[in-house]
Amino acid sequence: MIDLYTDATPNGLKISIALEELGLPYKVHQVFLGGEQLAPDFTEMNPNQKIPVLIDDGLVVTESGAILIHLAEKFGKLLPAEPVARTATIEALMFQVASLGPMLGQYLVFAAAWGNEFPKVTARYFSEVSRIMGVLNARLATRDYLAGNEFTIADIAVAPWIRLCEIHPACGGFPLNQNQHLKQWWDRVSERPSVWRGFSIPEPFPVEKQFEGFVKAVVGLGDLHPAE
Amino acid sequence: MIDLYTDATPNGLKISIALEELGLPYKVHQVFLGGEQLAPDFTEMNPNQKIPVLIDDGLVVTESGAILIHLAEKFGKLLPAEPVARTATIEALMFQVASLGPMLGQYLVFAAAWGNEFPKVTARYFSEVSRIMGVLNARLATRDYLAGNEFTIADIAVAPWIRLCEIHPACGGFPLNQNQHLKQWWDRVSERPSVWRGFSIPEPFPVEKQFEGFVKAVVGLGDLHPAE
Repeated sequence: MIDLYTDATPNGLKISIALEELGLPYKVHQVFLGGEQLAPDFTEMNPNQKIPVLIDDGLVVTESGAILIHLAEKFGKLLPAEPVARTATIEALMFQVASLGPMLGQYLVFAAAWGNEFPKVTARYFSEVSRIMGVLNARLATRDYLAGNEFTIADIAVAPWIRLCEIHPACGGFPLNQNQHLKQWWDRVSERPSVWRGFSIPEPFPVEKQFEGFVKAVVGLGDLHPAE
Repeated sequence: MIDLYTDATPNGLKISIALEELGLPYKVHQVFLGGEQLAPDFTEMNPNQKIPVLIDDGLVVTESGAILIHLAEKFGKLLPAEPVARTATIEALMFQVASLGPMLGQYLVFAAAWGNEFPKVTARYFSEVSRIMGVLNARLATRDYLAGNEFTIADIAVAPWIRLCEIHPACGGFPLNQNQHLKQWWDRVSERPSVWRGFSIPEPFPVEKQFEGFVKAVVGLGDLHPAE
């Protein structure tokens, strides 16, 4: 039995997509990030107080990148066993986890949650995210998927972050159309049934509530974690 | 034959420690981050223009987290095979890669490279790094190492970042002494011969040169990547 504690954020959607791709049954527990992640029961599962959390037959797994590797290894799909393709998959996954996710996350903190109070700081993250999109584009110049010719957990990890660039009002300026290989990859990946099904699990809270949760949870600004 | 393109930064030192721990011979190529990472030869190895890069018998691996997993899997050490401990190791590794590294990195951008031009932004990252250190401390309350009772690649990934908190002048305020489990872990890990040997490979450039490289390479500020 698999339980997924999540919300409709990029890191949450990764796991919905992976579970849809693997065709596994799972129970969704939607967490409102305006405070439910600080509850004692949730904190016991994840002292980092973040979604997603997966419970797989009693084993609690946190960190979306670790959940993807756990599921891929347990069910023998989406992470090639052959060493060259395997290493390429983990490399591209790490690039999402270390760069695309944190930097696009910081961009949204300054562009949206802080209402662009510091334009020079917002510009820093805009430049960095643009640079990162260029790196992904270069990687995709010679292959259909991020780790080669096979759809893997690296594509699953990147897809919801590129989708955020496509749909978030504060992300209008990112040059997806100038990164043709990335754009073609996005068209290919977002047409995949598991991906578009995963994108709607869970159904997002209404926009205002979602934004309220995001602002509250921003460390150094939000009510939940004021700056010290 | 293993070639390591690196510098004495936290992400670089991870790989020196892992190679020392595994007892493997390797050749170090020190890269000056004030521009050498943008050279065509380096960019061909890593389009993301970051160190470390490992070349293992012709296979080029980038992203420090991916290099650690590659080495651990190839040489059968530092990443348990047993599923519970394995998942705990990858989970703690991902927490370093996704949170401790990027957030301490951003703290240093604003506290040091930008000379604290935006105190409110610096305070955000101070709060976030303090929170992250608390999460590591909680994790270590019930175990000697980050993934259990065994030293793993998760400990290797975290050690150089905690060391940075200990030695960097801009990091004086982080409460390592208030996080007793983390402090005890640090004492335990930093005494390990592979760890203290790894910390000095490569020998750092003189402080001024190192800082020059860091400032130049900051996206949105540095000469190498001005804001757009």
